[in-house]
Amino acid sequence: MPDITAAAALAPARRGRPGYDRRQILEIAVEVFITQGYDATSVSSLAARLGLSKSALYHHFDSKEHLLGVALEEALGGLEGVLSEPGAREGGAGERLGYVLRGAVRVLVDKLPFVTLLLRVRGNSDVERQALGRRRAFDHEVTGMVRAAQEEGTVRADVDASVATRLLFGMVNSIVEWYRPTGPEGAAELASDVMSVALDGLRTR
Amino acid sequence: MPDITAAAALAPARRGRPGYDRRQILEIAVEVFITQGYDATSVSSLAARLGLSKSALYHHFDSKEHLLGVALEEALGGLEGVLSEPGAREGGAGERLGYVLRGAVRVLVDKLPFVTLLLRVRGNSDVERQALGRRRAFDHEVTGMVRAAQEEGTVRADVDASVATRLLFGMVNSIVEWYRPTGPEGAAELASDVMSVALDGLRTR
Repeated sequence: MPDITAAAALAPARRGRPGYDRRQILEIAVEVFITQGYDATSVSSLAARLGLSKSALYHHFDSKEHLLGVALEEALGGLEGVLSEPGAREGGAGERLGYVLRGAVRVLVDKLPFVTLLLRVRGNSDVERQALGRRRAFDHEVTGMVRAAQEEGTVRADVDASVATRLLFGMVNSIVEWYRPTGPEGAAELASDVMSVALDGLRTR
Repeated sequence: MPDITAAAALAPARRGRPGYDRRQILEIAVEVFITQGYDATSVSSLAARLGLSKSALYHHFDSKEHLLGVALEEALGGLEGVLSEPGAREGGAGERLGYVLRGAVRVLVDKLPFVTLLLRVRGNSDVERQALGRRRAFDHEVTGMVRAAQEEGTVRADVDASVATRLLFGMVNSIVEWYRPTGPEGAAELASDVMSVALDGLRTR
């Protein structure tokens, strides 16, 4: 995906350049939603940012909520996709948990703006409430994996499984606050750091 | 501090009851800032929520920004206070790091609305930028502690100290998203869970 920085999202689109395709409109809209807030963004201001008429924008997306829905699908589909990969379904629960954590970091890095938007959703519309429901279902599945790993003895049993899941994803999700794809830390290294801290702990053994 | 729920923050204050003192005004204002957003809250709407005239409100606080500053001081003062306690200054770096993590969870639980507000600050005013500067200084001091613990060999050296600090506080700060003082998990237990996950890891040894 093209590198669309916050600065680019705020700068007015240059007139006279070829029109955006559907994907580019989506990506720019997501950056505007993140910068200005979804509720505070009007279709008019989005169209102005894109240098499009409202009707040209409506040619690609039915409504602001439609744009939000497609954007959240990108993040949620990515996360749910991890759960259906063989590494998340086959083998011991501790191994599967590690696979899902690593996969979640990969999705977060690959789809950084989409996941950032997902994490800001507060449930003010049907699309947002559906997204929150899917996030809860994802967390619920991971919590089940933590519990199974506790039962098989590969994950410590003295931390409640749902608290452990919240702490794990608190750590993973916080990455959106500071990770930039242009920084020194690559996705693989970041995933490895999360695994080190979350699964093996910071303390030397 | 009285239990002020989000619902209570939204409900209009009951008329005819004794006036709020400065502390109560501060706590209600913080809940309104969290619920509605600081930028979206006007002094008029705050005064209406409190059942006070604007001049009565100005008797206690000079401005909306003054309220914000006092609220952020409560959170930052608490966190900085941990760093100046003997447990954070004496002994090995690994021990001091553990003390600070535990202390940060304690401050977060004790001052939940104030820390929640602090974590939402984005730097749109001088008061907010000063708060962000103090958060950075706090993080910087903890990063130094992580680095010292790596040098003494008590914290693994294969994760960059500043990445480790961000992951640790990503985990700690995420607690504001779900922790409720009325829930089954007490502050001491929560701190112990954070220590277990962050320092010793979820994986059984």
